Amino acid sequence: MDQQPGFIAAVEEARQSVAEGGLPIGAALVSKDGKILGRGHNMQIQKGNATLHGEICALHNCGRLPTSAYEGATMYTTMSPCDMCTGACLLYKMKRVVIGENKSFVGGEDYLLSRGVEVIVLDNEDCKQLINKFIKDYPDIW
Amino acid sequence: MDQQPGFIAAVEEARQSVAEGGLPIGAALVSKDGKILGRGHNMQIQKGNATLHGEICALHNCGRLPTSAYEGATMYTTMSPCDMCTGACLLYKMKRVVIGENKSFVGGEDYLLSRGVEVIVLDNEDCKQLINKFIKDYPDIW
Repeated sequence: MDQQPGFIAAVEEARQSVAEGGLPIGAALVSKDGKILGRGHNMQIQKGNATLHGEICALHNCGRLPTSAYEGATMYTTMSPCDMCTGACLLYKMKRVVIGENKSFVGGEDYLLSRGVEVIVLDNEDCKQLINKFIKDYPDIW
Repeated sequence: MDQQPGFIAAVEEARQSVAEGGLPIGAALVSKDGKILGRGHNMQIQKGNATLHGEICALHNCGRLPTSAYEGATMYTTMSPCDMCTGACLLYKMKRVVIGENKSFVGGEDYLLSRGVEVIVLDNEDCKQLINKFIKDYPDIW
């Protein structure tokens, strides 16, 4: 699962955010037939905007697709999704959420499961290193 | 409650969206000490972006405030909040969500209550008229 294009894209996005001075969190949305519909990274610091989490930015970068395009999709994210991003996955009827790591933060995983969404936690070393370095370097922002 | 500045702002935002050819849904976030932190309206049609719901746009228009600024706040919205916007209210630890109408759609009200958020439904005539007119005029978009 770590080698899925969607997950690789999510980690690339997290690294891109670091390069921009932002939070190291990325996401990619992949349709049920395997197409990357959108990818993005947390832009809270870059844009000074509280809603621009990684998953929201990935959805943002999909544009406004027909509802059917999202159904059965998989959201890949480098970190456990917060309540807002959990809700976004539910809103768009995603089938699966693949999470890079949930050691730094545990979001709405149980709620996703209770609503019938498959949740896979990879415990990925790259994701853990990215977030741990950020927490160490910028404890005030984290 | 219909005469609260936050609710009046939310309805004004919904009307503004109609004037722009958008969905008639508006929101305003009011701090625990009564200050409007941000207001906004659904911009999905105007910006071709699936994430730009009214509540998200109101948060967007707050900028990136300290977490403490949101705590205990009230989200006023003209329509029952979807799963994403429900999650956004939880993420920012809002105390209360005031909903103009929930006849056209019922979102995450029960989940908000289960997480300790106060939910008030106004069953407001202006909100019902705005959304009913949109559903009648644009059934394909709705």
